[in-house]
Amino acid sequence: MLYVPSVSSEPKRKSPNVVWQTGLVLRADRETQRGHRGVALWFTGLSGSGKSTLAGSLERALYLRGCAAYGLDGDNVRHGLCSDLGFSPEDRSENVRRIGEVAKLFVDAGIIVLCAFVSPYRADRDRIRSNMEPGDFVELYVQASLETCLKRDPKGLYKAAAGGQITNMTGLGAPYEPPLNPELTLDTENLAPEVNLAAMLAFLERHGYIAPALR
Amino acid sequence: MLYVPSVSSEPKRKSPNVVWQTGLVLRADRETQRGHRGVALWFTGLSGSGKSTLAGSLERALYLRGCAAYGLDGDNVRHGLCSDLGFSPEDRSENVRRIGEVAKLFVDAGIIVLCAFVSPYRADRDRIRSNMEPGDFVELYVQASLETCLKRDPKGLYKAAAGGQITNMTGLGAPYEPPLNPELTLDTENLAPEVNLAAMLAFLERHGYIAPALR
Repeated sequence: MLYVPSVSSEPKRKSPNVVWQTGLVLRADRETQRGHRGVALWFTGLSGSGKSTLAGSLERALYLRGCAAYGLDGDNVRHGLCSDLGFSPEDRSENVRRIGEVAKLFVDAGIIVLCAFVSPYRADRDRIRSNMEPGDFVELYVQASLETCLKRDPKGLYKAAAGGQITNMTGLGAPYEPPLNPELTLDTENLAPEVNLAAMLAFLERHGYIAPALR
Repeated sequence: MLYVPSVSSEPKRKSPNVVWQTGLVLRADRETQRGHRGVALWFTGLSGSGKSTLAGSLERALYLRGCAAYGLDGDNVRHGLCSDLGFSPEDRSENVRRIGEVAKLFVDAGIIVLCAFVSPYRADRDRIRSNMEPGDFVELYVQASLETCLKRDPKGLYKAAAGGQITNMTGLGAPYEPPLNPELTLDTENLAPEVNLAAMLAFLERHGYIAPALR
């Protein structure tokens, strides 16, 4: 498989105020062994836009190519690492911050980590990006109109919000701030899932995150 | 390589109140692909007892065997995920809780995650264990007398504590509670590092976490 060396791990290890006592295996070693780069793929969009579906299909495709990929989402994070947090603006920010830090660890471990979270605030997402090495954070904007998301309502959250059981629902009582310069925009309203999956794989290949598939 | 199936991931996915939308790839799939189990190896002991050294040597040995292993320690956690926490008993507990949750995610990802933290409170460590599936948490007690640790003082922390720059230093101003039933005790005072490394690898082989080495 193609070896895509990471340029970002060595300098970090040499940071003067951080002693990497266990630095016998470097990120680049792990990436060489796996045959692909570590990277955080950050899916952002309204509830019902299709983040989890797209992240799941990409995770499966990457798995079938032999890549080490892992998905983080509300289900395995909100019940655990962030079980102490609610949905106030401050808690949402802290939630996203912690997920960003965990994603950074997975990237350092040489894993392709797929993060599917509404993550409505632009500043929170930009903070994660600026906290990582260039190229380690890839923002994927999962785009669908609020009208379409309301119709899909896969978790019944919009319905619950309309009924008053949920306040501050993103898109209704709380804002959603779309990315200004996402690496990729995935239109789930007009494009079939397979088309979006192909676009994601092509992006990862083109930018050297994964090896090209055998034809 | 030997396939060591994990019995713990399937039932979790079927939990009625957790919807695994992206559950197209299961933990057992990832473990099959890697040829080893995901597991959290938790190194606990006084500062200077040798946690990071042993974890580092094991990480390297696992890497050379082709395993996906990753080390968490104060350097990559305290500056990131837990940068908002100090060293009060409450903050130490929250620090250990978060690391435990991150370790759980790595285990679900099929990674061998090596956690090297003083983690002085028994209740905190036991809470992590009880939050994971049986066999997913392995406690390694890195044992050396306080006298020896004071002499080694690799980070100069004991010296700083003696000088008053650090308060609540574990072993001096703050207690260390050794494990009552650790899976493995590693005596770094009387045994050479190679002996302790061999003991760890033998444990992992014997319990089916990794495949036996080719002889």
